[in-house]
Amino acid sequence: MPEGPPEPKKRGGYAKGDARKQQILDRAIEVFAQRGANRTSLRAIAEAVGVTHGTLVHHFGSLDELLVAVYTASDKALDERIALFEDPTPVEIMIESARANRAVPGLVQLYSTLMAAALEEGHPAATDFAKNWFATVREDLTELVREHQQAGRIRGDLDPRAVASLVIAASDGLQTQWLLDDTAPQDEALSILESLLRAPS
Amino acid sequence: MPEGPPEPKKRGGYAKGDARKQQILDRAIEVFAQRGANRTSLRAIAEAVGVTHGTLVHHFGSLDELLVAVYTASDKALDERIALFEDPTPVEIMIESARANRAVPGLVQLYSTLMAAALEEGHPAATDFAKNWFATVREDLTELVREHQQAGRIRGDLDPRAVASLVIAASDGLQTQWLLDDTAPQDEALSILESLLRAPS
Repeated sequence: MPEGPPEPKKRGGYAKGDARKQQILDRAIEVFAQRGANRTSLRAIAEAVGVTHGTLVHHFGSLDELLVAVYTASDKALDERIALFEDPTPVEIMIESARANRAVPGLVQLYSTLMAAALEEGHPAATDFAKNWFATVREDLTELVREHQQAGRIRGDLDPRAVASLVIAASDGLQTQWLLDDTAPQDEALSILESLLRAPS
Repeated sequence: MPEGPPEPKKRGGYAKGDARKQQILDRAIEVFAQRGANRTSLRAIAEAVGVTHGTLVHHFGSLDELLVAVYTASDKALDERIALFEDPTPVEIMIESARANRAVPGLVQLYSTLMAAALEEGHPAATDFAKNWFATVREDLTELVREHQQAGRIRGDLDPRAVASLVIAASDGLQTQWLLDDTAPQDEALSILESLLRAPS
């Protein structure tokens, strides 16, 4: 794309709008963390967040878009936490995510609600998010698997993209099992996957 | 529970009712297989199935209960297919399930819709089904893992229940990825899991 003129500076009203949107988002994250992501109406969510339905529509458009915004913001917080780890393996990242998510079951529920919506027709915002989400996570983890294979920490005889898909799938599926039954062996299963992928020393 | 008197034979009306219910269920399976499981209203489904809303409510009660009935019936058909295999490993069962499910994406979608509903409050039929589903599948696969470990086909140093959970999770998660992107390496990832679990010869 040809370079255009610099974007005009946001006027005060816009900046204020962004701040207000962030404020609503922060409150929505709290609401979902506490109450889960029942696919209730925007109206009910607006009430819980403490804004009018019109305000929510103005800032987020649809319920799916709000769910995407809430999930993306929570995931960013998790990324910052994981960035503190040194050379984590893909499975170690998933174990840490699982640990963080267990503290906020509502967000795990939100993720599953978002993914179920993504698989249905008529939910373009959720579908776009999910396709993009899996493509990005799969690509990032594939690269990470490759690095660990080169460093001799993950078995070198495995296709890195398939390993990345497997790790993401295991992590997602175990989270669902845990939400339905907190005795489901989530960490044990991820540890087994970690040990199986490790290059023989 | 003390043994009671034998159940009275169903009257003609009841038997006819069962046949009618089965007929509606068969048609609903077709509808879902073709159109997916958009969490549309019972009314829309009744229309697609070609019965009145009242008839659907009479036979199934709620949308969740209809989804459960459709999924259970499809799964039974899959079980019969898998019963033809000789000593399948848990992952082989999942590979065969994935193959069968790819032919009817609507049913995979139905499964994810049902599971998302199960994780939300206010969906007791879906929640009961999902809890019971995972508990049963996990138990069955744990037993199967144990048998394969004793026969020296699966590594003996792994906790069978955690392996069962891992295999179910991987299978579920890969199916979601495949629905969103049919280039996701579903079979490759399951084959990797199969090879990693195999006892060294």
